[in-house]
Amino acid sequence: MEVIVAKQAGFCFGVERATRIAFEAAENSKDEVYTLGDLIHNPQVVESLEAYGVRSVPATDNIATGSSVIIRSHGLSPEVVGKLKAKGFKIIDATCPIVKKVQSDADRLNGEGYTVVIIGDREHPEVISIAGHAGENPYIVNSVEEAREVEPTDKMGVVMQTTLILDDCREITMALLERTKELRVFNTLCGTTYKRQQGARELAGMVDVMLVVGGRNSSNTNKLAKICKLVCENTYHIEVADEIRPEWFDKANRVGVTAGASTPDWIIDEVVSRIDEID
Amino acid sequence: MEVIVAKQAGFCFGVERATRIAFEAAENSKDEVYTLGDLIHNPQVVESLEAYGVRSVPATDNIATGSSVIIRSHGLSPEVVGKLKAKGFKIIDATCPIVKKVQSDADRLNGEGYTVVIIGDREHPEVISIAGHAGENPYIVNSVEEAREVEPTDKMGVVMQTTLILDDCREITMALLERTKELRVFNTLCGTTYKRQQGARELAGMVDVMLVVGGRNSSNTNKLAKICKLVCENTYHIEVADEIRPEWFDKANRVGVTAGASTPDWIIDEVVSRIDEID
Repeated sequence: MEVIVAKQAGFCFGVERATRIAFEAAENSKDEVYTLGDLIHNPQVVESLEAYGVRSVPATDNIATGSSVIIRSHGLSPEVVGKLKAKGFKIIDATCPIVKKVQSDADRLNGEGYTVVIIGDREHPEVISIAGHAGENPYIVNSVEEAREVEPTDKMGVVMQTTLILDDCREITMALLERTKELRVFNTLCGTTYKRQQGARELAGMVDVMLVVGGRNSSNTNKLAKICKLVCENTYHIEVADEIRPEWFDKANRVGVTAGASTPDWIIDEVVSRIDEID
Repeated sequence: MEVIVAKQAGFCFGVERATRIAFEAAENSKDEVYTLGDLIHNPQVVESLEAYGVRSVPATDNIATGSSVIIRSHGLSPEVVGKLKAKGFKIIDATCPIVKKVQSDADRLNGEGYTVVIIGDREHPEVISIAGHAGENPYIVNSVEEAREVEPTDKMGVVMQTTLILDDCREITMALLERTKELRVFNTLCGTTYKRQQGARELAGMVDVMLVVGGRNSSNTNKLAKICKLVCENTYHIEVADEIRPEWFDKANRVGVTAGASTPDWIIDEVVSRIDEID
């Protein structure tokens, strides 16, 4: 059985950077170290960070006085950062630089008088962090239907959740063009995400079984699994090697493996070893 | 035979204004009065202006020293206006205010470092006038295919020929979104044009014969005729009442009449009278 791992599988630049910052903080800081919300959407990496002393908490109330707080890769709104500072915590910023750029685009649009529209999932922490930079009441839309409900305005500015697909954003942006005299669109999609999706689609087309490895709470991993399933019927989304079942490979000659942006190499390696054992 | 004239038939605000300016100039000016290119795209109005002493010439060489020159409704590039001024002509500006706004949007985009893309027909005088305000080498595109050939750039600014249809501009704009990190779109379509087209479509659906009245060189009249022909088989594009043939109305109970933005009321009135005579 041949196992092919997608070139683009695993940690993206932003996740690699955030994880490095967190491990370094755990090593060097004399204070307690916290992350407000999980640093990245991978439970195994978050557990591993906990073992090193980096605690993930859902709210500021859970953080001990005098601690260091890491801003997660998805970023935080200026309001929340302000609260953390007001409470005297030391801030360590691990926001993905590409998300940081979207926040600054949103800030700029708002400052220049544009009504800001964010294309994305209103529940996703990245979108919540961007919304905090987009003025009083930014719109968050995730479909053409929602775009059609945006109140008409003279100047409208658009930014996008970094992990979306361009085709979807195009449709939504076009619907917005009817609602304004001036539409200013920042294409804030992350190139890595797109290449990862393309690579996964190609690989899924070449194999009998496709494994997509990554957190079940990871938006980009879920999207990868959907894309692969369309091309390869026998696609499985797993978090760790232990979930693999030998019967998946009964008639398989070729197996493909890809992984989300928040999946570390060691989990991918374990998955590949496990398949080799079955063979 | 019932004759219904579309509410939106005839002179738009910009054409009405340009024509008034030209007749006033002819009346008040002591100099010779010229227009560089036809004032509006209606041969009968241009002839009528000639009778009042307003001469339409294709180039500055044909203009006598010391004359007044009217800038046509479609506007002129700053380069041509500069030449006219350098030659000592008195300038009378009859540019449609809506076109003027597009010129200023293009100027602004160029000044702020955007690569300017004009959606429209590169041969149309309005587009030529806008291009003169759009920096060194603006792109002029009229289809999705042409949009895909625009060189990728960091900042792209888009304006539209005022008489286009939003759906077409949307498609082209969407293709441009792939070619840039920031896309700033001014929706410069003229609302009157859109309403006129909607009104024509509705009326054409209610009648047995549809007459579209206006210059054969008028872009917006040609578009109206196309729109009506899709809904009413018996659609005829005429410039004047003399072209009407009685046999068109052999089996007709209802006749619709609409007219382009550069068609004067007196031509529409003549057309209606002629149909009444046949009845």
